Amino acid sequence: MEKLKVIAYARNGHTDKFGIPRQSRDESPIVTRIVFEPEYSIPEAFRGIEEFSHLWVLWEFSEVQSDNVQSTKEGLSWSPTVRPPRLGGNKRMGVFATRSPYRPNPIGLSSVRLIKVQRDHVQGTKGSIELIVSGADLLDGTPIYDIKPYLSFSDSHEDAKNGFAEAHKDYRLAVIGERLADEAVWRDIEYILSQDPRPAYQDDPEREYKLDYDGFTITFVVEDTTVIVKKITKI
Amino acid sequence: MEKLKVIAYARNGHTDKFGIPRQSRDESPIVTRIVFEPEYSIPEAFRGIEEFSHLWVLWEFSEVQSDNVQSTKEGLSWSPTVRPPRLGGNKRMGVFATRSPYRPNPIGLSSVRLIKVQRDHVQGTKGSIELIVSGADLLDGTPIYDIKPYLSFSDSHEDAKNGFAEAHKDYRLAVIGERLADEAVWRDIEYILSQDPRPAYQDDPEREYKLDYDGFTITFVVEDTTVIVKKITKI
Repeated sequence: MEKLKVIAYARNGHTDKFGIPRQSRDESPIVTRIVFEPEYSIPEAFRGIEEFSHLWVLWEFSEVQSDNVQSTKEGLSWSPTVRPPRLGGNKRMGVFATRSPYRPNPIGLSSVRLIKVQRDHVQGTKGSIELIVSGADLLDGTPIYDIKPYLSFSDSHEDAKNGFAEAHKDYRLAVIGERLADEAVWRDIEYILSQDPRPAYQDDPEREYKLDYDGFTITFVVEDTTVIVKKITKI
Repeated sequence: MEKLKVIAYARNGHTDKFGIPRQSRDESPIVTRIVFEPEYSIPEAFRGIEEFSHLWVLWEFSEVQSDNVQSTKEGLSWSPTVRPPRLGGNKRMGVFATRSPYRPNPIGLSSVRLIKVQRDHVQGTKGSIELIVSGADLLDGTPIYDIKPYLSFSDSHEDAKNGFAEAHKDYRLAVIGERLADEAVWRDIEYILSQDPRPAYQDDPEREYKLDYDGFTITFVVEDTTVIVKKITKI
């Protein structure tokens, strides 16, 4: 195959790599716009897509998304073993047993919920088709390579064994302290904080973390399983 | 991203593009070996993978896999609309609402069941690591780009709406007539025939089709919803 073509870019409040959920989740309230490039903003190419509740997104892991950049001239380098953050960051697993970015081909895979297709304003070559989705674990600006319909009879394995990821799937932090008056933005931020956005292998209750989301900087500490929000400022 | 790297090749009885199931399915008996290239046959890269029951395979749609080749110098060309075979081949849907190969980036996505990891015979740079999987809808020789663990809490949406694909998900043909004595090979062939391997928009009960699988050529006709096997010969 020749080089991959970027067909769209993700747009959302995740302007900071810090805090991006580690997997897509149906329960995530975070809305992402998938904005198609002019060449692919062809209304017919999306015919029938509203009939599906969920979609697959194939996207590029870019260097800015990693906590721990190991890059070469060709981009991210791959590593046979990686340290999954949910295992505390001190246990090494095979890269093919993880969703780590440090893969031979750094393509990410996320299932998302389709909310809406925005195509009415596309006229000639002006304007872009947008898919409005929720649940994506994508940084603002992430290049998108493909969108496919989710087919439950082929893609859903409710009883699949999740290996070492199983023990951590319901891991959540409580969130207390300061909050925003804007309920919609706060719902997103509270979700992000509950997912434990700290880099792996840090467990210092004194340490203050900062997270940027949708125009706000949130300063917080973590004590045991509770996030304490210290300050929220507008960027 | 630079060009994608082929990390492995699929090996199975599907030496003929004719008859490849149109989606991966858990109920498929067909076993595929995913044979890793020497560069990626590193035992540590698979550490922990046996803990997962299912895996994702990202692979290349190559030209030989299409019924209806539209190729350019760069490979398969994409088309904003395509005719899904399961809709009879005469209704056009948007390419992003289908799993058609005629996409801007011809990457296929299949979930498979992991049966076994074969790595014991890998010594130094000799030998290849193999993942033995079932349910793959892959042609023999398909280039593989990535393997990821299937995470049910992220990837499974049992109640997803399957759009126009829903009506056809339980479509099966009965299989009668000649059969093979070898039960294991016959189970595979019967499954393939039951999936209706005919190209779309052909409904001629007189017409004889030929399918090659695992060293056999099967000649059959289709009357309504029944496959009648006329002849089986060794290739």
